[in-house]
Amino acid sequence: MAVNYVGSILGSVQNYKKLALLGHDDITKVCEEIRSIIIDVVLKNGGHLGGSLGAVELCVALLRAFNPERDKIIFDVGHQAYAYKILTDRLDRFHTLRQKGGISGFPRRIESKYDVFDTGHSSTSISAALGFAKARDLRGLGHEVVAVIGDGALLNGLAFEALNNISECDTKLTVILNDNKMSISPRVGGMAEHLAKLSVSAPYRRLKQFVKDQCRAMQDGKMMAVRLAKVKTKLKSLLLPDNIFIDMGMSYWGPFDGHNARELEEIFELSKQYPKPLLIHVITKKGKGCAEAEERPASFHGVSSGTVIGEKSRPGPVEARQPDWSQAVADNIMELAARDERIVALTAAMEEGTKLRDFKREFPRRYFDVGIAEGHMLTYAAGLAAGGMKPVVCVYSTFLQRAMDQIVHDICMQGMPVLLAVDRAGLSGEDGETHQGLLDMAWCRSVPGLVMASPRDMVDLSYMMSCWFEKNIPVMIRYPKGIAPKSLSRGSEVPAPWKKAEVLRRGEGVCLMGIGAAVKISLDAAEICDARGFCDPTVVDLRFVSPMDWETIDALLGAHSLVVIAEDGYRDGGAAEAIAARASLEGYSCAVRAMGVEPKYIAHATRAEQLEDQGLTGEGIALAVEDFYGGTLTGEVG
Amino acid sequence: MAVNYVGSILGSVQNYKKLALLGHDDITKVCEEIRSIIIDVVLKNGGHLGGSLGAVELCVALLRAFNPERDKIIFDVGHQAYAYKILTDRLDRFHTLRQKGGISGFPRRIESKYDVFDTGHSSTSISAALGFAKARDLRGLGHEVVAVIGDGALLNGLAFEALNNISECDTKLTVILNDNKMSISPRVGGMAEHLAKLSVSAPYRRLKQFVKDQCRAMQDGKMMAVRLAKVKTKLKSLLLPDNIFIDMGMSYWGPFDGHNARELEEIFELSKQYPKPLLIHVITKKGKGCAEAEERPASFHGVSSGTVIGEKSRPGPVEARQPDWSQAVADNIMELAARDERIVALTAAMEEGTKLRDFKREFPRRYFDVGIAEGHMLTYAAGLAAGGMKPVVCVYSTFLQRAMDQIVHDICMQGMPVLLAVDRAGLSGEDGETHQGLLDMAWCRSVPGLVMASPRDMVDLSYMMSCWFEKNIPVMIRYPKGIAPKSLSRGSEVPAPWKKAEVLRRGEGVCLMGIGAAVKISLDAAEICDARGFCDPTVVDLRFVSPMDWETIDALLGAHSLVVIAEDGYRDGGAAEAIAARASLEGYSCAVRAMGVEPKYIAHATRAEQLEDQGLTGEGIALAVEDFYGGTLTGEVG
Repeated sequence: MAVNYVGSILGSVQNYKKLALLGHDDITKVCEEIRSIIIDVVLKNGGHLGGSLGAVELCVALLRAFNPERDKIIFDVGHQAYAYKILTDRLDRFHTLRQKGGISGFPRRIESKYDVFDTGHSSTSISAALGFAKARDLRGLGHEVVAVIGDGALLNGLAFEALNNISECDTKLTVILNDNKMSISPRVGGMAEHLAKLSVSAPYRRLKQFVKDQCRAMQDGKMMAVRLAKVKTKLKSLLLPDNIFIDMGMSYWGPFDGHNARELEEIFELSKQYPKPLLIHVITKKGKGCAEAEERPASFHGVSSGTVIGEKSRPGPVEARQPDWSQAVADNIMELAARDERIVALTAAMEEGTKLRDFKREFPRRYFDVGIAEGHMLTYAAGLAAGGMKPVVCVYSTFLQRAMDQIVHDICMQGMPVLLAVDRAGLSGEDGETHQGLLDMAWCRSVPGLVMASPRDMVDLSYMMSCWFEKNIPVMIRYPKGIAPKSLSRGSEVPAPWKKAEVLRRGEGVCLMGIGAAVKISLDAAEICDARGFCDPTVVDLRFVSPMDWETIDALLGAHSLVVIAEDGYRDGGAAEAIAARASLEGYSCAVRAMGVEPKYIAHATRAEQLEDQGLTGEGIALAVEDFYGGTLTGEVG
Repeated sequence: MAVNYVGSILGSVQNYKKLALLGHDDITKVCEEIRSIIIDVVLKNGGHLGGSLGAVELCVALLRAFNPERDKIIFDVGHQAYAYKILTDRLDRFHTLRQKGGISGFPRRIESKYDVFDTGHSSTSISAALGFAKARDLRGLGHEVVAVIGDGALLNGLAFEALNNISECDTKLTVILNDNKMSISPRVGGMAEHLAKLSVSAPYRRLKQFVKDQCRAMQDGKMMAVRLAKVKTKLKSLLLPDNIFIDMGMSYWGPFDGHNARELEEIFELSKQYPKPLLIHVITKKGKGCAEAEERPASFHGVSSGTVIGEKSRPGPVEARQPDWSQAVADNIMELAARDERIVALTAAMEEGTKLRDFKREFPRRYFDVGIAEGHMLTYAAGLAAGGMKPVVCVYSTFLQRAMDQIVHDICMQGMPVLLAVDRAGLSGEDGETHQGLLDMAWCRSVPGLVMASPRDMVDLSYMMSCWFEKNIPVMIRYPKGIAPKSLSRGSEVPAPWKKAEVLRRGEGVCLMGIGAAVKISLDAAEICDARGFCDPTVVDLRFVSPMDWETIDALLGAHSLVVIAEDGYRDGGAAEAIAARASLEGYSCAVRAMGVEPKYIAHATRAEQLEDQGLTGEGIALAVEDFYGGTLTGEVG
């Protein structure tokens, strides 16, 4: 159902082009209308509420001051850009946000010419903007380049490397720091408080006048500009506290009220006159315009589809509140931590997502949220381990991609007893291409010294985690988004041994092997094959991707005529390929089929839709078995 | 041949324990003796000369002020720690530096209890130190934790993430900034000049006295300490320029003369009294004590074995001066750049290693050295490409591990036309475990949208690079350390088509497939098999790892009874495994053998020794063929 905007100013404006013609009272109304659409669609479809509501005036001001057909506006992470999407020709389709075939939750070049650089992971925007700016200079073009980055993303190493490179690059670009942590709240202390005070102080007003004069003077010639820059530095040091941006050779303007569209527009217009790297500090409020989201910014950063707010406020649909894998892992960490003081837990700005709240409350000294800094988190964990601790790192599969060298160089090469608890492994649903966890198996399988396991249920999860605890070695445990089965296909509660695969069902002819979430799928497929009467498959939970349990697997390869391996990751380099290769290398003559994700970037849809599209369902695997036998068997059944 | 140190002070001291008893005149002599050993051994064996000579007094002072049995001293990168190695029980073995079975060129826990954390890649030391410090606090221990990091390594994102985390961590640790870029040279300008002046100024002397007083006062109670810290901040702001460390919540002491062992020792002793995170800025001179290395620090950063200095100075043995792969790639970039203005070249602090000097001289505006910042380099390249450029990124395989997410998220997901020129791919010799390029094939093969190629000779290299140029897609070209064959097994100079494998020799029964450096090895093996009369193998250059040329490969799998695939990378997840899997999945009945590197970290030795150990030689592959046929064939030949 499309959003109803008939009769609204937004409806009459439609996109950014007519936005320029509106007066400031109308702009205020348009911002309200945009907020209302965002709230409606995000509560229904799920998505990023707090950040996108906080950036409405920012997006509007950007689109009034800059020309998105010519200028390059790059949104860091990109989940705050909903208002930008709405105003750049996507109003009509915005109700399809994050749905299969609909609008992506992040900037996507294939979706719109106004999205100039794809994002999803944090802290890439300044590097990319520097690239756009330098390319512009080399090509003799004159457009503006703007990166919009949040305060959390700015503290990541990648953003730092880019900031550090800016002064060398001798180019013009504007970084807008969308600061919603250092908010107007009186409890933020120190630097933030000082900035907040400045934003309403008289010196700040004078600074704004100064900035204007300076920009006007700049146009008169370069010598003047240089002289003024010096004056400015002196003047600013009286008005502004020292800050890291000035240390790194950028000019700093701000802070400004990020919900005053008129002021932002004015400042952005001025910035176009400024010939050097510039950081504009903008203060916004997460969840602005939605009381619940303003009050609980962490809870409303990302919301599930079907969330209701107001009197009967509930976060997402019922199943989203059942114990999921993240919670099951967090509970196990709590248990281990209660048993042993050496257990510490680490997260990179994912306290909510990794469900470590209880751990933080219970063991505050042993809880480390390092911010968006996955690389540091892993090397820090290695250091903690070298110092005698037993660190558990909770990280999403897609973000682990940012710390691959640290897995190898700092953890596994030295055999450090770190547990990598890898969340959202496999197809991860509505966040789309940038958030899929499809590479961890292929990448980590080749890392010497790393044991990689994936449990099918909570029994095996607990077992694998306590094995890591006992064994003092690097272990990675991967698990998907969603509900964790308490117990799956178990006679007793006694788990199979460490590093061993487990035969869950003994059949003949066909052997279905799965790992993690694909075990349930393989069991379903066996039921279907059995029900349709074309075979009675053996079903195996591989449990370990690296090292593989070759003893068990070899016996199964030798005893079946068809082996189908299913995994929730890319086929190329994955577990199925390893087993297929084994069959060749050891000379088993059975047929082998690999069921995994095709070598493509998988767009947003529900996880169930994505699994279905990849044939990773009971039906999909049963079909592969049927294909192998040809029409004959099916014919027999029919 | 062991180094002769009979009659020397070092000979009588032997290790750091007796070092503490020496007077300062003797310390000066010991430093000279250590320098002389380092120069002798490094010129003979190859290694890192400039950095290790620059850090001699630093290592001596560390070992006098701290207790390496209890305190944790972590050397960033670690190539500057030779003096530390010599003084911690490795004097007798130091002449085996970087030789097979000898002393590693980097800190290695398995080598000595005094090496507490393995390094090799840059910028890990502060994260690791923070881990050690926090573990110490949680365990209630009292030892010191010291990270020694160079100025280049400090500017990396990982180091920044760690610095940013320090203030949160509320722990005591000391970071020693070994600054050899901001040297005493009069041409370093700006900040560095200011620091250099401070180091001899009266205010600096007063600061030193102040630091001493402050530390004494600290012992009197915490309140005093807090008050003094405030006074200090005020005082320092008069004496010292603003700096990033203070912005990030560390105390800053310095700069100090890094070649004055007595002063360093004194400062390190004081630092032990200081209860908070502290950065000590030390100025050293790269190559100190070796005139040639002092004059040309870049050339003497790392030297080849058999280097001669003095009147007939020459860098390394003759073969090291023949055109190598790095040079061949750099030459091709020059040619492309001359043809098209959109070509730009990027390196991460590897101008020398990647042979981009000529490019820099010829096209200074299109050359970007971003410093040790691989992540930023790749996203910057993606931005440049999005802005219309054609960026070539020159990077060592082992350092590409630090930017995996950027390959996926910023380059390949958006199909950006970046060329990743991946140097030192495969076994890389004397630098050992941390510098092997064994993961790039396994990791990058699973990245959708990336074409990965590896040339056997300079003809194919040029062809592959111009294909990338024409095709406007992400391409990775990997090549090993060492000499590039001009032309290998070619009838004509016309290369095989893009994405096609190439049959170099038509035989029967056995097919030997290789990629990159393994093509020559496969050709050698074919000669051996032929000479010994047990078969006449087909030899194939795979050329492309991803996508594989399945059309050609399928035909070969169908036409031979044994296929042996050789590659210069880890077997798990590599190219051979992909082909072995293909044979199973498509039902080819040929036997398959995969020749690659076993799943272990490979220590220092020559590349030839490492290849031999892994069976990656003509003889090794011939042996695999012989094994397959059993004794029979060999018997027939005999």
